[in-house]
Amino acid sequence: MNKATLLLNCDMGESFGAWTMGNDALAMPLIDQANLACGYHAGDPLTMQRSVALAVRHGVSIGAHPAYPDLQGFGRRSLSCSPEEVRALVLYQLGALEAFCRAAGTQVAYVKPHGALYNDLVRNDALLEAVLDACRSFRSGLPLMVLALPDNCREARLAEAAGVPLLFEAFADRAYQADGQLAPRRVAGAVHQDPERILGQALAIARRQPFADIDGKPIRLQADSLCVHGDNPESLGVLRRLRALLDAA
Amino acid sequence: MNKATLLLNCDMGESFGAWTMGNDALAMPLIDQANLACGYHAGDPLTMQRSVALAVRHGVSIGAHPAYPDLQGFGRRSLSCSPEEVRALVLYQLGALEAFCRAAGTQVAYVKPHGALYNDLVRNDALLEAVLDACRSFRSGLPLMVLALPDNCREARLAEAAGVPLLFEAFADRAYQADGQLAPRRVAGAVHQDPERILGQALAIARRQPFADIDGKPIRLQADSLCVHGDNPESLGVLRRLRALLDAA
Amino acid sequence: MNKATLLLNCDMGESFGAWTMGNDALAMPLIDQANLACGYHAGDPLTMQRSVALAVRHGVSIGAHPAYPDLQGFGRRSLSCSPEEVRALVLYQLGALEAFCRAAGTQVAYVKPHGALYNDLVRNDALLEAVLDACRSFRSGLPLMVLALPDNCREARLAEAAGVPLLFEAFADRAYQADGQLAPRRVAGAVHQDPERILGQALAIARRQPFADIDGKPIRLQADSLCVHGDNPESLGVLRRLRALLDAA
Amino acid sequence: MNKATLLLNCDMGESFGAWTMGNDALAMPLIDQANLACGYHAGDPLTMQRSVALAVRHGVSIGAHPAYPDLQGFGRRSLSCSPEEVRALVLYQLGALEAFCRAAGTQVAYVKPHGALYNDLVRNDALLEAVLDACRSFRSGLPLMVLALPDNCREARLAEAAGVPLLFEAFADRAYQADGQLAPRRVAGAVHQDPERILGQALAIARRQPFADIDGKPIRLQADSLCVHGDNPESLGVLRRLRALLDAA
Repeated sequence: MNKATLLLNCDMGESFGAWTMGNDALAMPLIDQANLACGYHAGDPLTMQRSVALAVRHGVSIGAHPAYPDLQGFGRRSLSCSPEEVRALVLYQLGALEAFCRAAGTQVAYVKPHGALYNDLVRNDALLEAVLDACRSFRSGLPLMVLALPDNCREARLAEAAGVPLLFEAFADRAYQADGQLAPRRVAGAVHQDPERILGQALAIARRQPFADIDGKPIRLQADSLCVHGDNPESLGVLRRLRALLDAA
Repeated sequence: MNKATLLLNCDMGESFGAWTMGNDALAMPLIDQANLACGYHAGDPLTMQRSVALAVRHGVSIGAHPAYPDLQGFGRRSLSCSPEEVRALVLYQLGALEAFCRAAGTQVAYVKPHGALYNDLVRNDALLEAVLDACRSFRSGLPLMVLALPDNCREARLAEAAGVPLLFEAFADRAYQADGQLAPRRVAGAVHQDPERILGQALAIARRQPFADIDGKPIRLQADSLCVHGDNPESLGVLRRLRALLDAA
Repeated sequence: MNKATLLLNCDMGESFGAWTMGNDALAMPLIDQANLACGYHAGDPLTMQRSVALAVRHGVSIGAHPAYPDLQGFGRRSLSCSPEEVRALVLYQLGALEAFCRAAGTQVAYVKPHGALYNDLVRNDALLEAVLDACRSFRSGLPLMVLALPDNCREARLAEAAGVPLLFEAFADRAYQADGQLAPRRVAGAVHQDPERILGQALAIARRQPFADIDGKPIRLQADSLCVHGDNPESLGVLRRLRALLDAA
Repeated sequence: MNKATLLLNCDMGESFGAWTMGNDALAMPLIDQANLACGYHAGDPLTMQRSVALAVRHGVSIGAHPAYPDLQGFGRRSLSCSPEEVRALVLYQLGALEAFCRAAGTQVAYVKPHGALYNDLVRNDALLEAVLDACRSFRSGLPLMVLALPDNCREARLAEAAGVPLLFEAFADRAYQADGQLAPRRVAGAVHQDPERILGQALAIARRQPFADIDGKPIRLQADSLCVHGDNPESLGVLRRLRALLDAA
């Protein structure tokens, strides 16, 4: 296994105006893919410009991280948009980020919907098709990042119909349900706090080996990228060990 | 003189969500260049998508019409942004519109700042340089549309330094001051109501002949494009005659 | 039956900045209760001030019309807020409108949630309790307006627990389902276009007589107020006849 | 001199949605007056509700801190609003905050405009009159907090005409110009970093004794309240000493 086998992606550029969030400067050197907020849940234009510059400086691939228009709720609240609205709001945010990429000599490398929009794609074919169509309409070959499940044949089928490549992402700090979905945060044990547990799950995912779901039963995922966090000293510490582990693997 | 000598441009796509503005469907067939709102003063994503489709259908060139972030004030209130902020907000809106253009098989052809941002460029070199830099950073050769003055050497100098082509726009329904600026709307006589007066001023501009400023003194402009309106039956009527006049000229 | 038996309420103050909506000046003299937008789905501060002044001039009772924060979607898209968030956003908008009422020598007389928020209250006890608590916290005795159903015992029970009076509103231009809910707009026959049908249903509601639901079966409602529209010449025409009918009854 | 002689006020409630700002929980016990953001530059409804609760818990007087509508710029960028617009946006925000105060059994005790709006009042009589009129329209006797100058006769004259009491605030961590205005932050020496300097200036203001302006010349102010900060460990440390100093004085 080499570094390319399992990439590390992180939500970034989530400051807004006078408010800062995250430790992007510290986390950026440790990751492969930065999912940058595009102004609808976070990320004003100057923040986007600076985030793109930081990613470019560290050779990190830039993903658009579009969301429902909801600054107050940080894009975490589902908004009952039509597929046509979702396609348009993804295109809008994707284009806005691309402008900063272009000005910095690069381009958006993939799309990863944020928060409630990401979650809503799991249950709603029409919304997933809308996002796929936004990707395809924007640039041929632009990949969409979705949740890696034990069985991703639904996503694969819709993506193939749309002609859009998929990237599958997994989580090392979240517990999986028996059906392969993430256990909701409100469920006890849904979020792993123990660094050893997180590193163990990450390594299993990297090696495509089974690991324990929330009920202790084995689950196995095929993932391209692992979603990591770097917004506090603890998560940064885990991220550093994760980076070293994957680099050594 | 042929049609290319003086183009007609119109602010469009200024609906927002449930609110409609303008008669874009009626005016679009009559113009050459559509300045499309990009979400900051008007123009939600679906409106942008539909406006781009309408422009493409009529072979109308698409310009980005970026503004200060001020939906409540429709971008008509000056906001004291830094040049760095202005560059970033222009890039943001430009990119957002480009996404819909790209999805429709075309691209943004020029940039015309909206409202208070347009006006602020007249007096502030740093802001004009910021907008020029946004254009240049986005795409080499992307033109910026500015106000045609009897003497545009300031704009020409800054644009040349930035490597950005300029388009000069004139107004047939506004009175000019002795210094070549538009008379403020609050001044008596600042806005021409008489269609004959408007058509006469348009024809003079098209022929690069002098016409009367607000004090009755002759003024002469070299313009690429005339800013027209089509949001009510009267302005649509004038626009139809203007189109015919220029086509016949 | 006198005028007080069935009041007429209308959503108003739904302009925003440069965008106008509705014919408030024409409809206001014909109604009893104006539900005024409070800035979250429509209604900027100046529009709110002018709407309050118009209502006061015509002796029309003012209701707060709070919504999810969604200008782009005009508050018509459900947003998955927590009850705590809903209570706070209702208080916010209620207070904002009260300021203009107070400055005009009056006060908010009732609360009628708008759009998706109104609809979400039908299915979600926790959200309804949150809105009731906002009303009660703001002013003892401030009524909440909800949908009149053949059986409103759920609403009555929760309102009584909260100590909040209810106002029940009915619709003369919408078809009711067998369960007493409004038929969704997408269903054929959900919206009555025929003025005679609308006037007939209004009169039946005013007289507390049964009228036909969407399947032709009889339905009977006890309503305090009828929701009317005045945003186009047709609806204004119906509204004028309705006003005359109720005044004569 | 007793505690009432010089109060301590602090800008608070400036978090927004997922973004936090300040250490309100630590600073609130140390101050007398909390200027709470009202949603236009910071402060979503839940934040406002929690900030009001915190102030009530510590017996701190609540002031409305209205701003230009500019989340992206945190209300620090001047927006060229008409006096009529300013009056309306102050009323809107004032009312919104009052709703949370009312729900918590208290009321807004004064108004202190935020950021660029605060600064714009210094130079613009029409804007100051608009804010005064908003205060007076909202509640008779509601005071407006303005900058204490060596000569506040302009403010006193306009406030008297409007029938609005004034509160004068001074700064201990900012240098004053010869004309009595605050030296702009960009000027060297405009912001005091040395705690002893800050405490010395505070004590002079409390005792109504002269202190050195930015040129070293003596300046003397009559102030009701001192604007303090508590958003980092340093400013909290100074604030604790200031509190002790004033309590002991």
